[in-house]
Amino acid sequence: MLKSELIHSKILEVLARAGHHAKVLIADGNYPASTKRGPNAELVCLNLAPGIVNCTQVLRAILGVVPIDGVNTMMYEASDPYTLKEDPPVWDDYRKVIREAGLSLKLEPIPKWDFYKAVETPDHVLTIQTGDQQRFANILLSMGVRID
Amino acid sequence: MLKSELIHSKILEVLARAGHHAKVLIADGNYPASTKRGPNAELVCLNLAPGIVNCTQVLRAILGVVPIDGVNTMMYEASDPYTLKEDPPVWDDYRKVIREAGLSLKLEPIPKWDFYKAVETPDHVLTIQTGDQQRFANILLSMGVRID
Amino acid sequence: MLKSELIHSKILEVLARAGHHAKVLIADGNYPASTKRGPNAELVCLNLAPGIVNCTQVLRAILGVVPIDGVNTMMYEASDPYTLKEDPPVWDDYRKVIREAGLSLKLEPIPKWDFYKAVETPDHVLTIQTGDQQRFANILLSMGVRID
Amino acid sequence: MLKSELIHSKILEVLARAGHHAKVLIADGNYPASTKRGPNAELVCLNLAPGIVNCTQVLRAILGVVPIDGVNTMMYEASDPYTLKEDPPVWDDYRKVIREAGLSLKLEPIPKWDFYKAVETPDHVLTIQTGDQQRFANILLSMGVRID
Amino acid sequence: MLKSELIHSKILEVLARAGHHAKVLIADGNYPASTKRGPNAELVCLNLAPGIVNCTQVLRAILGVVPIDGVNTMMYEASDPYTLKEDPPVWDDYRKVIREAGLSLKLEPIPKWDFYKAVETPDHVLTIQTGDQQRFANILLSMGVRID
Amino acid sequence: MLKSELIHSKILEVLARAGHHAKVLIADGNYPASTKRGPNAELVCLNLAPGIVNCTQVLRAILGVVPIDGVNTMMYEASDPYTLKEDPPVWDDYRKVIREAGLSLKLEPIPKWDFYKAVETPDHVLTIQTGDQQRFANILLSMGVRID
Amino acid sequence: MLKSELIHSKILEVLARAGHHAKVLIADGNYPASTKRGPNAELVCLNLAPGIVNCTQVLRAILGVVPIDGVNTMMYEASDPYTLKEDPPVWDDYRKVIREAGLSLKLEPIPKWDFYKAVETPDHVLTIQTGDQQRFANILLSMGVRID
Amino acid sequence: MLKSELIHSKILEVLARAGHHAKVLIADGNYPASTKRGPNAELVCLNLAPGIVNCTQVLRAILGVVPIDGVNTMMYEASDPYTLKEDPPVWDDYRKVIREAGLSLKLEPIPKWDFYKAVETPDHVLTIQTGDQQRFANILLSMGVRID
Amino acid sequence: MLKSELIHSKILEVLARAGHHAKVLIADGNYPASTKRGPNAELVCLNLAPGIVNCTQVLRAILGVVPIDGVNTMMYEASDPYTLKEDPPVWDDYRKVIREAGLSLKLEPIPKWDFYKAVETPDHVLTIQTGDQQRFANILLSMGVRID
Amino acid sequence: MLKSELIHSKILEVLARAGHHAKVLIADGNYPASTKRGPNAELVCLNLAPGIVNCTQVLRAILGVVPIDGVNTMMYEASDPYTLKEDPPVWDDYRKVIREAGLSLKLEPIPKWDFYKAVETPDHVLTIQTGDQQRFANILLSMGVRID
Repeated sequence: MLKSELIHSKILEVLARAGHHAKVLIADGNYPASTKRGPNAELVCLNLAPGIVNCTQVLRAILGVVPIDGVNTMMYEASDPYTLKEDPPVWDDYRKVIREAGLSLKLEPIPKWDFYKAVETPDHVLTIQTGDQQRFANILLSMGVRID
Repeated sequence: MLKSELIHSKILEVLARAGHHAKVLIADGNYPASTKRGPNAELVCLNLAPGIVNCTQVLRAILGVVPIDGVNTMMYEASDPYTLKEDPPVWDDYRKVIREAGLSLKLEPIPKWDFYKAVETPDHVLTIQTGDQQRFANILLSMGVRID
Repeated sequence: MLKSELIHSKILEVLARAGHHAKVLIADGNYPASTKRGPNAELVCLNLAPGIVNCTQVLRAILGVVPIDGVNTMMYEASDPYTLKEDPPVWDDYRKVIREAGLSLKLEPIPKWDFYKAVETPDHVLTIQTGDQQRFANILLSMGVRID
Repeated sequence: MLKSELIHSKILEVLARAGHHAKVLIADGNYPASTKRGPNAELVCLNLAPGIVNCTQVLRAILGVVPIDGVNTMMYEASDPYTLKEDPPVWDDYRKVIREAGLSLKLEPIPKWDFYKAVETPDHVLTIQTGDQQRFANILLSMGVRID
Repeated sequence: MLKSELIHSKILEVLARAGHHAKVLIADGNYPASTKRGPNAELVCLNLAPGIVNCTQVLRAILGVVPIDGVNTMMYEASDPYTLKEDPPVWDDYRKVIREAGLSLKLEPIPKWDFYKAVETPDHVLTIQTGDQQRFANILLSMGVRID
Repeated sequence: MLKSELIHSKILEVLARAGHHAKVLIADGNYPASTKRGPNAELVCLNLAPGIVNCTQVLRAILGVVPIDGVNTMMYEASDPYTLKEDPPVWDDYRKVIREAGLSLKLEPIPKWDFYKAVETPDHVLTIQTGDQQRFANILLSMGVRID
Repeated sequence: MLKSELIHSKILEVLARAGHHAKVLIADGNYPASTKRGPNAELVCLNLAPGIVNCTQVLRAILGVVPIDGVNTMMYEASDPYTLKEDPPVWDDYRKVIREAGLSLKLEPIPKWDFYKAVETPDHVLTIQTGDQQRFANILLSMGVRID
Repeated sequence: MLKSELIHSKILEVLARAGHHAKVLIADGNYPASTKRGPNAELVCLNLAPGIVNCTQVLRAILGVVPIDGVNTMMYEASDPYTLKEDPPVWDDYRKVIREAGLSLKLEPIPKWDFYKAVETPDHVLTIQTGDQQRFANILLSMGVRID
Repeated sequence: MLKSELIHSKILEVLARAGHHAKVLIADGNYPASTKRGPNAELVCLNLAPGIVNCTQVLRAILGVVPIDGVNTMMYEASDPYTLKEDPPVWDDYRKVIREAGLSLKLEPIPKWDFYKAVETPDHVLTIQTGDQQRFANILLSMGVRID
Repeated sequence: MLKSELIHSKILEVLARAGHHAKVLIADGNYPASTKRGPNAELVCLNLAPGIVNCTQVLRAILGVVPIDGVNTMMYEASDPYTLKEDPPVWDDYRKVIREAGLSLKLEPIPKWDFYKAVETPDHVLTIQTGDQQRFANILLSMGVRID
């Protein structure tokens, strides 16, 4: 067993080959993980059951191992049959986790269909499929540069 | 043996990686399963013999495991040498199965060559090839969102 | 997203091809998942971080989808440098989950090196690697027969 | 769509490369399809749902395309927790299908654990996994010689 | 050995996954089988020696197993260094085989470079490479619909 | 198109990597091609239809391209349900083809089950599956040494 | 060991699946074999050491097995830092080998960057990488038609 | 162990199949190795730990085995959040190594996003991922021609 | 770029799937990395050039990420043509690195041919091939248990 | 093009992963390259035509890149139909090449069937198939240790 906080074989393998500008998608349970993805992306399925694991757990683990310099969420839209009335509570959880990781990044929501487009690029390296049941919980990370 | 109603290994694997907007094609026996498909789709062959299995059996099984929010059938056309004079009886079977599944969805027929185009997209995740002998029995499902 | 309780793509795929007498190993974080396994087994890695996911969560999910008629745990041994003085608390969690699933099965501990041998057979179909930090939390399930 | 009675892609492919003495297993829903098999065997999963397809449907289809000169069933045993009190009704269905195919073969039951051994040989070319819910419905066919 | 007339493993496998509008190319010995093909096509090499097997033998075998509703040959052209002065005799053989199969289809020749284009489509499922020594013996079949 | 007599892609590939002591099996239509074979052997399927191609055609082609210094046939046995009363006529065809190739080799029959054992060795490089309908038409060749 | 002049396993395999219009590139030691190639081409590396093997040896071997009806060389250009002042001597070797093979073909040089384009087509089936040290020794062959 | 200076299995394999105009990227630790690459490129990961190995070590090794006739570095840009104020010191190390290798090549910096484009071509054969911690240490080599 | 000390993609992937009792071999430059290995082991080649990387660098990196509870070196033997007269100096480097990692483990040398046997077991998960030029620098690690 | 003497992609790749005790077979044209080999060995086919390349050329190239400390030839035997009366002349060529490489090794012949056994071990890493027409020209090398 690795002695680090993030101990998953495939996630570590993919992140270690990635670099600046690479995108990591933490997908909620309803995200179409096998179809909305970039041509270079790998898929890691951590969705054992509804709520296990959830996006917040994955976010915390990822922030511990790679530098991140951009964070996008998927914006709910009025025309969507599954839309929301206000920001999903989980976005505040994300803000808290980011703060606890010592980062001063803002969540930047982008419209649903643009969000898909942002994922479907050659920079997309990894989707982590969760069992998160909350709507619009998807979160897309951009990797930064390690300086030390 | 799984304790659920749908017990097929590959179908469950594909559906569990899919999500909102994914398309599932239940193909009749004459559908060109290996050529008219999307680039991300997998093919499951359940066509043992004519009529075994049929599209209605597959539809019932799929509706039991994933949320569906759109249903298309292939419209017969006057210019087609194998055309029909009226709706194929199996469409009523589909309506009945959908109703029994507690859904209020309508069958939406689309012209044959547009139907092929609707299948041949990146959203297409699965074709289930049946032995259904009825003409124009193809049916294309769109996955929705689980909310609970 | 599947509508069932267990929603993991690969676990469902493997269990759906398995049957009576097949063995499923839920491995704790220190189990040598890549080396102590049977020749037909597949490996699913759910070990995101220490404690996420844990063996109890996986046990509950598995009991929900397949019939089980045998449960073994790995017995701690005096000569082991990492031995315990008494049964690990997680075993009681397992008993509770089994009871809640409506089963009347007993946990049957087997000595550590015999446990490895019990895993390394052609009947072994699946190892689910968890991040469970508790020592001697490994648990081996035998599939039974569905009768209905 | 093929014009024959058996129209399944993979089953035809495997049978066409097989010959005298090859074994074909039609497995009921509880048979451990992924683990009790010979080293050269392929697996075709036709188990959509409980009872769909069943072993009798597959038997009829197979008898239509290759010569068979031996048929074994799995014998129930007193010591088995899932044993039966008398021959399962499906065996009579098998006898009827064999007769209708113009063959004069007898069903030859062999004890459960010997049955597994009979499957696990290099001669085993194919397992067809069904959703048949009946216990002890497994049936093992030996291919004969075409003479015409 | 299968009891049917067409007994080839790979040809049966490919045709069983194909359907309406699929194209099957029976290639003469000089056709560039590995390069002029569609992206979904498979290649079966039956060219043991010059004349063994020939296109007519393959045509007869194919017509026995799938419905065909279109037949094209490759038209010889004046500018071609290997051109012919009149229709190759094998075209009459094809007409005879088609008639004997109970079909009323006409051979429809298309110019050489258009013929290549007709092959190089996603609908192309299979090329059967023969050892036929006759020039312009290539023949392209379109699969139809089974109605019974 | 190659200018030689034997023009088959895979057969040439396999023979060109083989050498002294390698075994080539020309299998009749009922030989179990996928199961009775050596661990290094490849399978080439030339069985389009019954009688096409036959073993004699293949034998002639093989003798034209590699040196052969041993020839075995499969001996029919009294206890076999498909046995013969006298040598199959095809053996005389083989003798004629061998003579025409300028070789002075004798056919050496070996009992059926020993024949299978002779095939199932690491020296076995190739099985060519034919559609030959004659019983006991299998023929096993041993490659010799080219001296020039 | 094959009894023919060209005895290489992979070269024979590729040529046997090729046909009219297919391109074969014999590459000198400095040609970018892994990057300037067509999408269907295979690469055979015969470059043991500088000068072993050379392009002339390969040309002789290829002309012995397939019909060729076009031959291109790569033209040296004034602007190239590695340009030549006159035709490389090896071109005369090529002319001699072509004549000895009984062919009346001319060498047709094409400019370097057009030569790359001529290679990078779907018709390109094979690159044979040599250790030839001569500059501008690359030679591209077009396959013709066997007539006999 | 090879007797040469460069002893790495995969690097030698890739360079030996490459030729004139091929591109080799030596990537610093923050380069997105898995996503910014050409379609023909292979990836060799030598990044054990920060600073091990570094780009200068790799450059020296590569210059020892292949002719190089062009060298590009990635230019830092004012708008980049991780930009530099002056040339990174490692560029002087590169100049020294190039000189020591007996070459008179100049470093030619190209703007960051054009650098990515220069990498993402079919000519790109290899990325060697290092653990070099210096910013803007990426270096792209163009292979030349061996003349001797 | 990962923020940890060990940043290699494949090494992390393999160690994350390993566990108690797994063996990791750090091989010197002359170790037969492709042949003396266990059936489950993967090979990572970090041998860029003689001395780069060396075994001590790898040891330090490994000790940082997994718990180790056993360390073996390969003992030099009198009968070996490449034997040493005394312990190789690198062994003291290993002792120092182990101490710096806070471990109190001893180096346990085992005779050369027994060392190979200790590697060639199913517990062997990884060989890291270095360019270390020192003789008898091979070092074999046993993974322990993480307790926290 | 590499600047070294041995420039073959696959040979370099295999030798760079090999080490002390590894075996390299240089096979003459009649050696059964695909069947008499060890389980870890790779096959490189350099047999373009009879005599091209020959074993002596390969031996010279190999001796240039790796340390060798053992050389075996295959001894001709009286009972062999293709036996020789005296040592084949090529053995003297081998002695000369070994001397020119600065080595003082002796050729050690071993009986034919023992030679095959010496090849068929896990230490066998590579067979290079040549077109050498001389009988008993096979030569088996053992890799030694680089010391510098």
